[in-house]
Amino acid sequence: MSDNKKIKPALSKGTRDFLPKEIAKRNFLFDVIKKVFAKYGFQQIETPAIERLETLTGKYGEEGDKLLFKILNSGDFLKDTPDAILAEKNSRETLKHIAEKGLRYDLTVPLARYVVQHQEHLAFPFRRFHIGPVWRADRPQKGRYQEFYQCDADVIGSESLYNEIELVSIFSEVFHMLQFDNVELKISNRKILAGLAEVMKAEDKFTALTIAIDKLDKVEKEKVLSDLQADSFNEQQIKLLDEYLGISGGNDEKLAQLKTYFSGNETALAGIKELEFVINTSHIAHFASHISIDQTLARGLNYYTGFIIEVKNHSGSLRSSIGSGGRYDNLTEMFGGRNMPGVGISFGIERIYDIMEELNLFPNNVSQGTKVLLAYFDEPSQQYAFNVLQQLRAAGVAAEMYPSVSKLAKQLDYANKKKIANAIIIGSEEMQSGLLALKNLIDGTQQKLSVADILKVMHT
Amino acid sequence: MSDNKKIKPALSKGTRDFLPKEIAKRNFLFDVIKKVFAKYGFQQIETPAIERLETLTGKYGEEGDKLLFKILNSGDFLKDTPDAILAEKNSRETLKHIAEKGLRYDLTVPLARYVVQHQEHLAFPFRRFHIGPVWRADRPQKGRYQEFYQCDADVIGSESLYNEIELVSIFSEVFHMLQFDNVELKISNRKILAGLAEVMKAEDKFTALTIAIDKLDKVEKEKVLSDLQADSFNEQQIKLLDEYLGISGGNDEKLAQLKTYFSGNETALAGIKELEFVINTSHIAHFASHISIDQTLARGLNYYTGFIIEVKNHSGSLRSSIGSGGRYDNLTEMFGGRNMPGVGISFGIERIYDIMEELNLFPNNVSQGTKVLLAYFDEPSQQYAFNVLQQLRAAGVAAEMYPSVSKLAKQLDYANKKKIANAIIIGSEEMQSGLLALKNLIDGTQQKLSVADILKVMHT
Repeated sequence: MSDNKKIKPALSKGTRDFLPKEIAKRNFLFDVIKKVFAKYGFQQIETPAIERLETLTGKYGEEGDKLLFKILNSGDFLKDTPDAILAEKNSRETLKHIAEKGLRYDLTVPLARYVVQHQEHLAFPFRRFHIGPVWRADRPQKGRYQEFYQCDADVIGSESLYNEIELVSIFSEVFHMLQFDNVELKISNRKILAGLAEVMKAEDKFTALTIAIDKLDKVEKEKVLSDLQADSFNEQQIKLLDEYLGISGGNDEKLAQLKTYFSGNETALAGIKELEFVINTSHIAHFASHISIDQTLARGLNYYTGFIIEVKNHSGSLRSSIGSGGRYDNLTEMFGGRNMPGVGISFGIERIYDIMEELNLFPNNVSQGTKVLLAYFDEPSQQYAFNVLQQLRAAGVAAEMYPSVSKLAKQLDYANKKKIANAIIIGSEEMQSGLLALKNLIDGTQQKLSVADILKVMHT
Repeated sequence: MSDNKKIKPALSKGTRDFLPKEIAKRNFLFDVIKKVFAKYGFQQIETPAIERLETLTGKYGEEGDKLLFKILNSGDFLKDTPDAILAEKNSRETLKHIAEKGLRYDLTVPLARYVVQHQEHLAFPFRRFHIGPVWRADRPQKGRYQEFYQCDADVIGSESLYNEIELVSIFSEVFHMLQFDNVELKISNRKILAGLAEVMKAEDKFTALTIAIDKLDKVEKEKVLSDLQADSFNEQQIKLLDEYLGISGGNDEKLAQLKTYFSGNETALAGIKELEFVINTSHIAHFASHISIDQTLARGLNYYTGFIIEVKNHSGSLRSSIGSGGRYDNLTEMFGGRNMPGVGISFGIERIYDIMEELNLFPNNVSQGTKVLLAYFDEPSQQYAFNVLQQLRAAGVAAEMYPSVSKLAKQLDYANKKKIANAIIIGSEEMQSGLLALKNLIDGTQQKLSVADILKVMHT
């Protein structure tokens, strides 16, 4: 600490500190998800925050590249930048000479790199999960950060639809355990969208079509259709799309209508068959969640090729997406690996946290740390208290002693602030009798007990 | 994934991926430490990876500033850099215009910022722990990384020596739980060193003195003394220092000799008294660890002002420091906070991991995830297996089904690679009888059991 200049304590924009009570809740949430992942045979991995820019660049589109945090090379970083580029203040060209590293933007590209790099040490199909921070230079706003957590589970190296079914089941089980009471698992299949493009004779405009469909969540159908018409889709195409979007009813009705609509189109029918298998085989034991076919689901990213899913919360005021995923085929290709099929899901854990806060879904005792505080009046009783403290801890009880002789009110105020539920108060009388005052700080009751009896109470 | 250019999968230098079995071990290690922290009333916090450079710069000396990873500003980052600076390729001056953020270098400066910034929401004395990655642009070498974990526990806002005693106790308890069998807790007090400088009449050279003493771990005493003599320390000073370094024996002998040596020097005597109190009050219940006074301990960093500690492992080939800490007085001052005393310790968890690997201290079952694999021969038995799978998971058993119809050998090979200890093998015979083959993949034994009986076996 060589520099004594005083600095206003402040966070970098879009980042957060977490208070102990927030970490306790986040750990509760993460632990529930980890436990379910483990029960389904998923193993945790970690990759570094820092990746080579070569690994990250070009994977997230031009917009994504702009949002990558780049790390400046160490030392005399300008040394190798051509003078001409600096003279014209060309940031874009200069970047190539002064930064080789960046912060990961998601957990998916690192997974692809990891799988290709370590394939000899992995058991395939590789079931992995990863929970950790990612970084994006987005404009910060309420509920959106530059540093935030992602939580992904993927199966790499298997085409079996049972993987899809297991991932659906994981969503259902986790939200059941978290006590969400109305969760919709919306599913569809990208092969149906590919078939739609064929039926519409719009294969060359597939990306524009999926992007438009993706907007239906936020934009009126009429507006989406008229935008497409303006964007060179003809009347017949719009009519066919409108018809497709109009398919409605329960899952069985939708399947029947989809089969009719796509009669003779092999691409879509293959997707419909997969959808049917997933629905019929999925065993959603938890009635608070239900699967529904949503043929208007598109999942923007172009890399999905089969099954797609989006999880919606329908309780409280934050009725938004709390999870998503899908099947992809070309993930490892970009790193020169043999083509491995994959399917994965992602929990929107930052959003899930916010909803749980709003709906009061965290258990009351989640941030309960220390169980009892040792309080005392003077140095002799402090020494006595320290002995009792050691006995409590040796018995596995989370306990603290207020560290210095202070007014009792101050010590109990500390317990109160830390939400410690019990205090043992020791004075000369207690030292003589060996019966200590155990005070319940929630209801205010107090009893005099030996250390042995206190240990019994603490363990119940 | 818009770019199909193939890239060799590679890590940024000095960073690591972690395989599932490594994460399992790291989680075991972290969980032991977290459990002990919680039992002592320490609460977990988190701070962001990204901090303002203003927060980080000037805290770690000139060398440290060079090792900070700086993050390039977003967008047209060169825009505001004066032409003249760019023309002369002045990296040092350019830096001030193109980077506002950096990656945290340790967990201590973020703690100082955090405490000042959130003091109204914290209970003081504030007992917090923090486990997370930090980043340093050091030259990578064996066992040293650019991205590595730190693990700190601190008490902020209390001068009581009971805090020191508790931290010593945490070290002892953690290394006991991790089954280290020969751990030395070396302690001293910076007040003794301050007194030494007074006795030597070398107060103006205190930093040079502590740096020299700090080297005694690696450099011969004669060399250290002659270097100091070359660096303007006179003969009398060297003689006094040599005498001080020569103090030896058990803790009681050392205390007696220190008292004699510093007779009349109030500064050192205050430190000796503190040392004595910590030793006499510490209750090291675990005999594999022992406290020893080491008056040659200096703990380089200038911010320590009282108690200092360094933990040494004496088993195996990696006989190095596995923990350290001390008391400091001015931590929060740099952020304009009122002066809060603090004391903290740090576990060298990367090093501890390496030693545990070498000494085989991780439990055998630490990476045991999935307990049983469902294997089968064809589609009908796959469907049957999927039903059994659901029953196992509903009963809380970590189970997997191989996802696609494959040769039995391939399925069992998967189980073997994932170290899954049991397989349930289902064919047409088993489907008819309802008695499934439960195979122990470790000893090769096999028995035919109903699902109900398998559940019983799995739960024992």
